[in-house]
Amino acid sequence: MILHGYWRSGTSYRVRLALSLKGVVHDRATLDLRTGAQRGEAYRALNPQGLVPALQLDDGSVLTQSPAILEWLEEAYPTPPLLPADALDRAVVRSMAALIACDIHPLNNLRVLTALRAELGADETTVTRWIARWIADGFAALEPLVARHGRGFAWGDRPTLADCHLVPQLYAAERFAVDLSAFPALVAAGEAMRALPPVQAAHPDRQPDADGVAA
Amino acid sequence: MILHGYWRSGTSYRVRLALSLKGVVHDRATLDLRTGAQRGEAYRALNPQGLVPALQLDDGSVLTQSPAILEWLEEAYPTPPLLPADALDRAVVRSMAALIACDIHPLNNLRVLTALRAELGADETTVTRWIARWIADGFAALEPLVARHGRGFAWGDRPTLADCHLVPQLYAAERFAVDLSAFPALVAAGEAMRALPPVQAAHPDRQPDADGVAA
Repeated sequence: MILHGYWRSGTSYRVRLALSLKGVVHDRATLDLRTGAQRGEAYRALNPQGLVPALQLDDGSVLTQSPAILEWLEEAYPTPPLLPADALDRAVVRSMAALIACDIHPLNNLRVLTALRAELGADETTVTRWIARWIADGFAALEPLVARHGRGFAWGDRPTLADCHLVPQLYAAERFAVDLSAFPALVAAGEAMRALPPVQAAHPDRQPDADGVAA
Repeated sequence: MILHGYWRSGTSYRVRLALSLKGVVHDRATLDLRTGAQRGEAYRALNPQGLVPALQLDDGSVLTQSPAILEWLEEAYPTPPLLPADALDRAVVRSMAALIACDIHPLNNLRVLTALRAELGADETTVTRWIARWIADGFAALEPLVARHGRGFAWGDRPTLADCHLVPQLYAAERFAVDLSAFPALVAAGEAMRALPPVQAAHPDRQPDADGVAA
């Protein structure tokens, strides 16, 4: 199994977290988003959309889109589970994940920020405000959900797919200096995750392709 | 069960389609997005995020985020299934759904377009180009997937969650006059869906709150 991704990509980070928490042995291939490697011919043969991540299985199948990859991992490697047993609880965890995957992250990824600059003439102040705005809006919605359902983690007392989405989004928020003081439940869940060795191993700065230069 | 939504909301439309295809009896409550009803106190008591849709169950539970609601419906009402039986096939269907839910729709919803106008000074020409650009980019990625995996529908020969995402996105594309000539597989899947009476019943224009005035 090969995870095609990039150290600083939030969606790659989600999948790294799930692989690491589940102890799934895999190889890595890196696509440098800053040079557009994900749009190159070789990678597009695997994933025509030219976005990371993609999970290439040993039989040659290529899975794309992090929410779909995470659900597949949960089905193929059910232990430890990253979804609760009860259907309503699963819906809560998935709603937290979707809040990040649909309402926050898509507005702030590299191709969108590039379009804001190139097509709408946004300067860096405007882009930074744009990023912070959607993170703050989304976190304001997520905070009461985590405060209600979390007991240490985003949901309950162990990692779930909600945390696999939250940790990369917190990393992005810190990178863009978003004020997190209004989101104590989210910060606490992030800290609980970061205390776990498999989570530490998945951190962007600890990946072989990390070079500390901003994407 | 009460579906809180709005006739022209693409995410509400996804859930209507699944409810209709599964024959789940339910009531409806409408939130007029044009007047900001979804941000009113009454609705926020149900869904603090103030976004549609929300599915209120008979026991008082409130499910939010359409991808989470759709997965819950699939678990609670498994017949007819909207996901394939095989895990890899499910990953393909979910990747199609996520491509729309994460890479297209979030960039074009009402609150984002409002922010483009108010915060980036975008005029209507720019907003329309922005909408068309993300739909075309996403559809260009989705087309080969549907061409490969579809046999009439987006995946296989019967409706799946991929079609529940595709039909509302096609509706939005037509509304914004996006050229669909490069996406014959998507258009064909949409036509196959629209031939089904439960899909026809879920069309925005056939909802009681529809008034034909643009949101």
